[in-house]
Amino acid sequence: MLDAETIMLATEDVLRRHGPAKATVVDVARSLGVSHAAVYRHFPSKAALREAVTRRWLHRAYDDLAAIAADTATGPAERLRAWVFALFRAKRDAAARDPEIFATYRVLAAEHSVVAGEHVEALLGQLESIVGTAATARAVFAATAAFHHPAHAQEWSQADRETVLADLCTLLVEGLPAR
Amino acid sequence: MLDAETIMLATEDVLRRHGPAKATVVDVARSLGVSHAAVYRHFPSKAALREAVTRRWLHRAYDDLAAIAADTATGPAERLRAWVFALFRAKRDAAARDPEIFATYRVLAAEHSVVAGEHVEALLGQLESIVGTAATARAVFAATAAFHHPAHAQEWSQADRETVLADLCTLLVEGLPAR
Repeated sequence: MLDAETIMLATEDVLRRHGPAKATVVDVARSLGVSHAAVYRHFPSKAALREAVTRRWLHRAYDDLAAIAADTATGPAERLRAWVFALFRAKRDAAARDPEIFATYRVLAAEHSVVAGEHVEALLGQLESIVGTAATARAVFAATAAFHHPAHAQEWSQADRETVLADLCTLLVEGLPAR
Repeated sequence: MLDAETIMLATEDVLRRHGPAKATVVDVARSLGVSHAAVYRHFPSKAALREAVTRRWLHRAYDDLAAIAADTATGPAERLRAWVFALFRAKRDAAARDPEIFATYRVLAAEHSVVAGEHVEALLGQLESIVGTAATARAVFAATAAFHHPAHAQEWSQADRETVLADLCTLLVEGLPAR
């Protein structure tokens, strides 16, 4: 039985092998040995299919983060540190493991900016539940851009990144050290 | 009398009009109506010429910053805010005024990574004189990447940027608000 899950897995596989230029409904149908009409029953267009795959990829990335943000037994400072490090490591590992797939998903995220926007909103909501206000959440998200914005992916393998991020978290929590 | 200053001005003009692929010694000599031997007397190679122009451009950008950093009559919190805003506005205005030149200089900075590295070191030194330690300076520089790293240039015209940067500076100075 052909279901949406199977189609999305096949689409990810086609993206992995051929990049974002391919991965049309016809390519995906061919890889599954089914007619493209069978795929269209689940996804009305190439755009709908790719949007669903992009949304799933982004969701997968932030399930762990939601759990950290919701852990109110831990104080805000420690939760913030844990959340920021989890976000950085997830992005860094994804980019290192498979730079081509990471690049592919960057293209998809740019293509489906509504989906990417929802993703950022969800992350900001999690941050707000840690730091208390939407404005502070936005400031923290901007302050950590070098550790989650894909334009910085090339820097993430530098040896000093975790040290700088730890110092950055201390600064965000405590402010400038007294002189 | 042909001097280095005249040659560098002409090089900037050639870069402005033709982009980084052009701006060879021959192009610059032609634009000045002199022989390329005359240019070579001041700059032994295309690389030397472009490096000098890049270094001058980067210096120009941070002269004001050096004055702010050195103004010890102002407290560290206010100095940090003034320095970060001056850096952001200088970069934003340069990118907005002439996006092609900004892109050209990004290419030159990538080409002469030693020069770009010296530039970052100079900025970090200024920051250190404001915030007290090299580690804190590095953390502040990373925390403000979204406002000075050229990969973020497209975001700099967004209406909320100065508000987010102001909130970010408050966070860096004061730390997380108490709940």
